[in-house]
Amino acid sequence: MKKSMVIGALSIALLSAGAVAQAGSLTPEEQIKTRQAGYTYMGWNMGKIKTQIIDQSVAYDQAQVSAAANTIAAIARSGMGALYGPGTDKPIGDQYTNVKPELFDNFDEVGKISARLTETTGKLVEAADSGDQAAIRVAFGDVGNTCKSCHDKYRQK
Amino acid sequence: MKKSMVIGALSIALLSAGAVAQAGSLTPEEQIKTRQAGYTYMGWNMGKIKTQIIDQSVAYDQAQVSAAANTIAAIARSGMGALYGPGTDKPIGDQYTNVKPELFDNFDEVGKISARLTETTGKLVEAADSGDQAAIRVAFGDVGNTCKSCHDKYRQK
Repeated sequence: MKKSMVIGALSIALLSAGAVAQAGSLTPEEQIKTRQAGYTYMGWNMGKIKTQIIDQSVAYDQAQVSAAANTIAAIARSGMGALYGPGTDKPIGDQYTNVKPELFDNFDEVGKISARLTETTGKLVEAADSGDQAAIRVAFGDVGNTCKSCHDKYRQK
Repeated sequence: MKKSMVIGALSIALLSAGAVAQAGSLTPEEQIKTRQAGYTYMGWNMGKIKTQIIDQSVAYDQAQVSAAANTIAAIARSGMGALYGPGTDKPIGDQYTNVKPELFDNFDEVGKISARLTETTGKLVEAADSGDQAAIRVAFGDVGNTCKSCHDKYRQK
């Protein structure tokens, strides 16, 4: 194994223990596509909670909100760090990425944000399962702020 | 509301109760993109279990396999039926879809496959959480066969 691969592997491990094994044989393009898929799917589920709990433009349905919260939390815990492997810091071929290359120099901080996402999405699940809409509102805000803290620093505008 | 919209809404409700509300304001293009994101993310997580449990080309890590199983199950329960709304039966603009239009005439059967996916992915979570690799192998096969039963009928080759 080349030294650069070892360093890359160690850096990624900071994000998620054993993450390298999880990436498996995904190419950099596939890693970018897969992480974007995860964010797209989280975003849809965040949107469902937002319309029911924040905007209240759609009637509240506890089962839907619980399912959405569980999906967001599961994706947050699925080891996405493995999808930020070497060569995924900029667009490749037809595969665009919004990531700022700075993310790859700050795995320590990104790992902390990732841990906060695990924590806040876990609380969102608890609130959603309880059916307490006021609690869901607070927990949803904390998840949203965690997402934003990463977007503000590491996502291209 | 036009009659065709009512019929569309009723059909989709067969897939997932309250699904229409879940689609929210997603355009047909966004619905296709979002369902593909869900399948891509499920596929990555299926791949992780496959390499560790079936191929055994990567060392077994119970935490990873549990996280992967939970992610697959959560996505399966997230109300994907809402992402098969009117106008999503064929490619739109730049948004390609592999779906066969026949799916939209067979929501009854698709609903049954969807219920089986909820059941088999639930069993995969139980097996993964137990750490019994033989049980995970069986449960994984059942999930794979459920996916395949839909692909064989309703996905373009």
